[in-house]
Amino acid sequence: MAEGYGSIPSTPLLKDELDIVIPTIRNLDFLEMWRPFFQPYHLIIVQDGDPSKTIKVPEGFDYELYNRNDINRILGPKASCISFKDSACRCFGYMISKKKYIFTIDDDCFVWVGDLGEAGIFAGFADLLLDVGIYLVAKDPSGKQINALEQHIKNLLAPSTPFFFNTLYDPFREGADFVRGYPFSLREGVTTAVSHGLWLNIPDYDAPTQLVKPHERNTRYVDAVLTVPKGTLFPMCGMNLAFNRELIGPAMYFGLMGDGQPIGRYDDMWAGWCTKVICDHLGLGVKTGLPYIWHSKASNPFVNLKKEYNGIFWQEELIPFFQSAVLSKDCTTVQKCYIELSKQVREKLGKIDPYFNKLADAMVTWIEAWDELNHSGAAAEKPNGPAK
Amino acid sequence: MAEGYGSIPSTPLLKDELDIVIPTIRNLDFLEMWRPFFQPYHLIIVQDGDPSKTIKVPEGFDYELYNRNDINRILGPKASCISFKDSACRCFGYMISKKKYIFTIDDDCFVWVGDLGEAGIFAGFADLLLDVGIYLVAKDPSGKQINALEQHIKNLLAPSTPFFFNTLYDPFREGADFVRGYPFSLREGVTTAVSHGLWLNIPDYDAPTQLVKPHERNTRYVDAVLTVPKGTLFPMCGMNLAFNRELIGPAMYFGLMGDGQPIGRYDDMWAGWCTKVICDHLGLGVKTGLPYIWHSKASNPFVNLKKEYNGIFWQEELIPFFQSAVLSKDCTTVQKCYIELSKQVREKLGKIDPYFNKLADAMVTWIEAWDELNHSGAAAEKPNGPAK
Repeated sequence: MAEGYGSIPSTPLLKDELDIVIPTIRNLDFLEMWRPFFQPYHLIIVQDGDPSKTIKVPEGFDYELYNRNDINRILGPKASCISFKDSACRCFGYMISKKKYIFTIDDDCFVWVGDLGEAGIFAGFADLLLDVGIYLVAKDPSGKQINALEQHIKNLLAPSTPFFFNTLYDPFREGADFVRGYPFSLREGVTTAVSHGLWLNIPDYDAPTQLVKPHERNTRYVDAVLTVPKGTLFPMCGMNLAFNRELIGPAMYFGLMGDGQPIGRYDDMWAGWCTKVICDHLGLGVKTGLPYIWHSKASNPFVNLKKEYNGIFWQEELIPFFQSAVLSKDCTTVQKCYIELSKQVREKLGKIDPYFNKLADAMVTWIEAWDELNHSGAAAEKPNGPAK
Repeated sequence: MAEGYGSIPSTPLLKDELDIVIPTIRNLDFLEMWRPFFQPYHLIIVQDGDPSKTIKVPEGFDYELYNRNDINRILGPKASCISFKDSACRCFGYMISKKKYIFTIDDDCFVWVGDLGEAGIFAGFADLLLDVGIYLVAKDPSGKQINALEQHIKNLLAPSTPFFFNTLYDPFREGADFVRGYPFSLREGVTTAVSHGLWLNIPDYDAPTQLVKPHERNTRYVDAVLTVPKGTLFPMCGMNLAFNRELIGPAMYFGLMGDGQPIGRYDDMWAGWCTKVICDHLGLGVKTGLPYIWHSKASNPFVNLKKEYNGIFWQEELIPFFQSAVLSKDCTTVQKCYIELSKQVREKLGKIDPYFNKLADAMVTWIEAWDELNHSGAAAEKPNGPAK
């Protein structure tokens, strides 16, 4: 933790303990912009959609790549829990990783290009868009490039404070501490499991808000990291997210979205709600705030509306469900918590729509697949890595 | 709400609906720095300590001033609930006000000068310190003077969102909104009762932290306002605070501190914990963050340690008490909530120290006094205002 914020560390933090997971359907030219920050790390690329398509990865990156055929081969029938034609497939990367930490970042061009292609509108712009990296490296107010990954690692390595709010935000940042009135017994904090980063420029709005405020841009750089308090849910976005895979990995299931499912764009939300409930139960911390990434292109609000339609209704019942979810004392591991939660999903959400029964099944399958890969050494399966 | 942040509004917001309450033991030269912002408003000055001393208020301010003799005359035996020789006496100003909103700001030179005088150390610096305003007007990162009062008013006039965390912070600020995954049914928010502002330069640390980090300064301008989630307690500092007196006033009792009491520097904390529990019960919002004020001088950590000593122990039991406090459904007004809370204080905290029985009594007296002043018109009592 000796490196300054925003610098490119000479010895990258956690170099051998962190994988970067990227879901994609296109060539990963956007990695060029991240080269100074990502090149020291290992990448896990989860190719979404047509497996016959070749994804080009810029030279010099250390990566493994899994397409749908790989996922089917590795997981067998359990591959049913991994979404198809949706960035939710990224969670396969969390499962196959053998590292302690995960950083995941979107290459959400696939949403634009794929959906626009299907929708047949603005198709003429597609090539143009392909030339533009969706995520540029954001800058802090002093103009320095933000090393998002470094900030995530700092967030994960410092404790969280979920039991009492600190008005000067993260008390473990340089120049900050616990303020007067903060109980001393709570100052040790708890281990941080999740670091949720934000986005400058295009904010992560739902389709209705996109439609109402097409020109709104997030220009406010809020120089804060804070713990989401115990008992409080938040909307976890998968665009710029890091977590401790050993501590919370099995809860980071991105659900059933995309092809053949009645819902999209709720993959990260679902994972966030489940994760938060389980972190609260297990006494783990969730942080949000810095780092920012630059989100340069908004996805199509019409396409998004179609995907979100059911979710917008359902979330009105999902939030009270998660707010009141209680896990029994026997739930001492993430896996046990997750299985318990899947039962409650079936019992209490199944009546909203049969989709939730299917999702509850998939939650169980996900845990079974996770345990298989992470106990049996099946992850030694040869992926489509670069020629070495 | 049409005024830009940080500007001096041509028509001051809520000019006739807000009182500024200042506790003091000295001449209020510091007001000069606030003149452009405060002059349009009415001030309520609560003189602490020796009532024979004359407090000078700079010309041009509209104020009323109450000293201990006034408080005794107006409240009679009930004056016992108002602390003596402690800035906790400020809450008398909340009670005597007839306005809808209160902004309170410290003139905490009295802590320095008074205590240093008693302690007899650094006494030679006292005159020097008298020449320095404790609070200077803070500047935002663009160098513009911060109109703290205007920001507080904006915070109070916009709803709070205590039931679900918004990752882009206050969704009602310009350029922000609710993010994807935020339930639409919760977007109306709830009425805001409290706006808690922060401090640049000298942070509000307790004595142990002051002693350990004497040189730490808060230089981080976090450009955010956020709702403290329901069920989460926070350390409310009275240095830079605004609230809706009609909605929550009777909960803003600053307790028994200072002369003759075994504790000091927990007045605002006590008010904050009671207020938050009651706001959560009544469905009202509490915000923290902007505006910042400039806090130029730290109080003496040795003196502070003496005052805080008991509080540092007691807060370890107070926090669990407030975290688990439940108010009955019959508690439909702030007064009823507060009386109910006073019973729980007696019942559950009385065993920690007899002080809490005395405090519970004072809480009841406070409510009786509040109701007397606010129903009987007793507040028409002539204060020591400026010659007009």
